Amino acid sequence: MARHQHRVRVESLGERMTLGAAELKHLQVLRLRPGDTVQVFDGQGAAGEAELTQLDAFGAALTLRGRSEISREYPQPVTLATALLKGDKLADVVRAGTELGAATFQLLNTRYADVPQIGDNKLARLRRVAEEAAKQSQRTVVPQVLAPLPLAQFRPEGQVFYAHPGSPAQLLQAVTWQAPLTLVSGPEGGFSPKDLAQLEKLGAQAVTLGPRILRAETAPLALLGALASSGM
Amino acid sequence: MARHQHRVRVESLGERMTLGAAELKHLQVLRLRPGDTVQVFDGQGAAGEAELTQLDAFGAALTLRGRSEISREYPQPVTLATALLKGDKLADVVRAGTELGAATFQLLNTRYADVPQIGDNKLARLRRVAEEAAKQSQRTVVPQVLAPLPLAQFRPEGQVFYAHPGSPAQLLQAVTWQAPLTLVSGPEGGFSPKDLAQLEKLGAQAVTLGPRILRAETAPLALLGALASSGM
Repeated sequence: MARHQHRVRVESLGERMTLGAAELKHLQVLRLRPGDTVQVFDGQGAAGEAELTQLDAFGAALTLRGRSEISREYPQPVTLATALLKGDKLADVVRAGTELGAATFQLLNTRYADVPQIGDNKLARLRRVAEEAAKQSQRTVVPQVLAPLPLAQFRPEGQVFYAHPGSPAQLLQAVTWQAPLTLVSGPEGGFSPKDLAQLEKLGAQAVTLGPRILRAETAPLALLGALASSGM
Repeated sequence: MARHQHRVRVESLGERMTLGAAELKHLQVLRLRPGDTVQVFDGQGAAGEAELTQLDAFGAALTLRGRSEISREYPQPVTLATALLKGDKLADVVRAGTELGAATFQLLNTRYADVPQIGDNKLARLRRVAEEAAKQSQRTVVPQVLAPLPLAQFRPEGQVFYAHPGSPAQLLQAVTWQAPLTLVSGPEGGFSPKDLAQLEKLGAQAVTLGPRILRAETAPLALLGALASSGM
């Protein structure tokens, strides 16, 4: 919803920063020139403004002009733990979930999963989607996308929530922001009784998303949208 | 998140209901037979269970076995007024917005719109998307998709909200559910100063979606997700 700003990811924020080949090419495509100003961020929470002091066939260098104090992160890290989904749906969830502030995506193997596994190429693509979406939404943290884990081996810290039809509890009333937060989201076929027993064992709290049936890719974004609507 | 149920839209709920060609074909594809039970709904809020009492080359007929009392609708009708968006983004918003309970989609012409107009074919497609999504989410109301209107000519009733970066107000704290609700959502380029003045004239309240920059197709779903997370 804002005009595009040139944002460049660097290894770490420092007085003088050199760029990798991908970012160098990106700056060339944008037709930036020495003296131009860009936003820099390191993907771990630090950001600032930098001047492009070199851009030629040999490489690009940036000089830091100031650090940014704006935080676009939740007060506690939010993990979206999502079952594997078919086709491009996982990429859609990672893209919008990154905009909506998730710090980690933990992929999960669940009983009724639409797809049993995910290839390395697809995992790499999800990580690129997260990085791109972090830039677009001007976040200083690039979310991690973690390789799938069986739900039975998942050990989240802090508060854990999952959407369950008919639950009376409301996410925004239950969140304390005193501990890390995990939202668990099921596959298209829903959680199996075994999955639900496992969630209970983890101390996960069921919360409502209203009386309508949501697709597996819509439910997690509704939960994150609710968090965002609290202004955090 | 639920197993698929056969849902059939009928003109109106009655003792005996005959079906149009599209629904007839749908039942044939599903290999349903006389004696099978399906869910019926009229798209205006009535739903029930019916028995397939005829299915042959001459047509299909259903006999009503019971009316459903479950409401999957908000206590007040929710309108999503959205700027025109490029490509398939409007269809994505209508699909997820229908799952999340919008009763009406009012397309808007805004100053920085990504596309100036929408063709009849595309409007017809959005209406099909809304009908399909209403079935999938087991809603009894099929949302209307209304042809674009300049924002200056839009006269919503009741409470009107729009997401605005930096606003401290929270949607769930501001909604009273005592009047119809309209959520206004801008184009990728954001609202123009003139658009914002018009929103103010309509008495629209700015609400937060947090400090991150959201794409035009993510923001309205975050607002609707917040409503859904209140259990309504």
